[in-house]
Amino acid sequence: MSIEAKLEELGIELPPAPPAVAAYEAWIRTGHLVMTSGQLPWKGEQLAYEGKLGADLSEAEGYEAAKLCAINAIAQLKEAVNDLNRIQQIVRLEGNVHAAAGFRGHPQVLNGASDLMRAVFGEKGRHTRTALGINEMPLNAPVQLSVFAAVEDGE
Amino acid sequence: MSIEAKLEELGIELPPAPPAVAAYEAWIRTGHLVMTSGQLPWKGEQLAYEGKLGADLSEAEGYEAAKLCAINAIAQLKEAVNDLNRIQQIVRLEGNVHAAAGFRGHPQVLNGASDLMRAVFGEKGRHTRTALGINEMPLNAPVQLSVFAAVEDGE
Amino acid sequence: MSIEAKLEELGIELPPAPPAVAAYEAWIRTGHLVMTSGQLPWKGEQLAYEGKLGADLSEAEGYEAAKLCAINAIAQLKEAVNDLNRIQQIVRLEGNVHAAAGFRGHPQVLNGASDLMRAVFGEKGRHTRTALGINEMPLNAPVQLSVFAAVEDGE
Repeated sequence: MSIEAKLEELGIELPPAPPAVAAYEAWIRTGHLVMTSGQLPWKGEQLAYEGKLGADLSEAEGYEAAKLCAINAIAQLKEAVNDLNRIQQIVRLEGNVHAAAGFRGHPQVLNGASDLMRAVFGEKGRHTRTALGINEMPLNAPVQLSVFAAVEDGE
Repeated sequence: MSIEAKLEELGIELPPAPPAVAAYEAWIRTGHLVMTSGQLPWKGEQLAYEGKLGADLSEAEGYEAAKLCAINAIAQLKEAVNDLNRIQQIVRLEGNVHAAAGFRGHPQVLNGASDLMRAVFGEKGRHTRTALGINEMPLNAPVQLSVFAAVEDGE
Repeated sequence: MSIEAKLEELGIELPPAPPAVAAYEAWIRTGHLVMTSGQLPWKGEQLAYEGKLGADLSEAEGYEAAKLCAINAIAQLKEAVNDLNRIQQIVRLEGNVHAAAGFRGHPQVLNGASDLMRAVFGEKGRHTRTALGINEMPLNAPVQLSVFAAVEDGE
């Protein structure tokens, strides 16, 4: 099944790739890799979620925020490679969680991104992950997610 | 001297590569690189160290925790490449230290990982490093370490 | 215009590449990429800026600190490739801001690095970026910046 068909089956409509919020690019391709900048849980021009896990948001909301970051990252990948079927592997998710004192649910939150990548890309969605708790996040976003992906016909 | 012989000389017995704690993979190979997920100071199924540097753990304990993360990372690399002699270079250590307010000993703590990589891999253990202080770490781990390594017969 | 001429036009004199502060290397080349370790705002053997954004330093000072990190990173790249005209792309800036409670100006601070890369390298200075707020930074540095760059004649 094509990735586009899979997205449709999952009821996911890719948004336009969110533009960078400052003097940088949303993605770059180098060699066989596409790397995205840090993705936030944008829904159009608004952050769908704001605040810290462990204070302002529940773990379930954090999971949804991480999922939305991943959807935005897929939108960046599509802009980078045009046809998502050319993605060979989602190599790496760098997951950063805006964490209030004592929060420990990073893995559960970031599974929102990991589960989506596996659902959309199947075996090609298998990835490494980092999970850090960040004290102060740009724009008060609850999650920031960077993605490295390998492209099939990469040099 | 082979890497296995060097490990034996150093009295290091590689543990089984720790499994990922959530919906991701412990390592991925892409092109000539192997990247690990964030490694924690597991000793079997327990974290050998927990808490924050500057509050719960001494710098010397942090050094040992970072060393243990590096040993676990080497176990991941072995699983990825089978023969550790195929490692061409330990390219990068991304070091994250669980830090209480005012802690500044990140370099000393992370040397626990760096010194080990140099001891085991010699010149091939030379690496770049990042060193960040994290306010809230998954599972209350004191150190989280990610490794990028180049493989000799990479594409 | 050559990169060296551009640096001169901008009034930037590259310092000697700052040495690593512990048991690691300041840069590594792997395949077509050069990766630097975390760069701090060194001016000779002193940090030109110390402290947290949102407490000890203004956003304008943070911008200058980020710019200085980027200048030091360019010095590392020059040491890695000898001729800066061989840099094909500044692929990635990993930006970390030492942030007091409630600080949200990470993008403005890190633009100090991004603007410089664009000014020096033009289109080849376009890059992805991550922007995290760090609670406790090594040496009390206000910014830590890592750079990935692609080299033209990379393997």
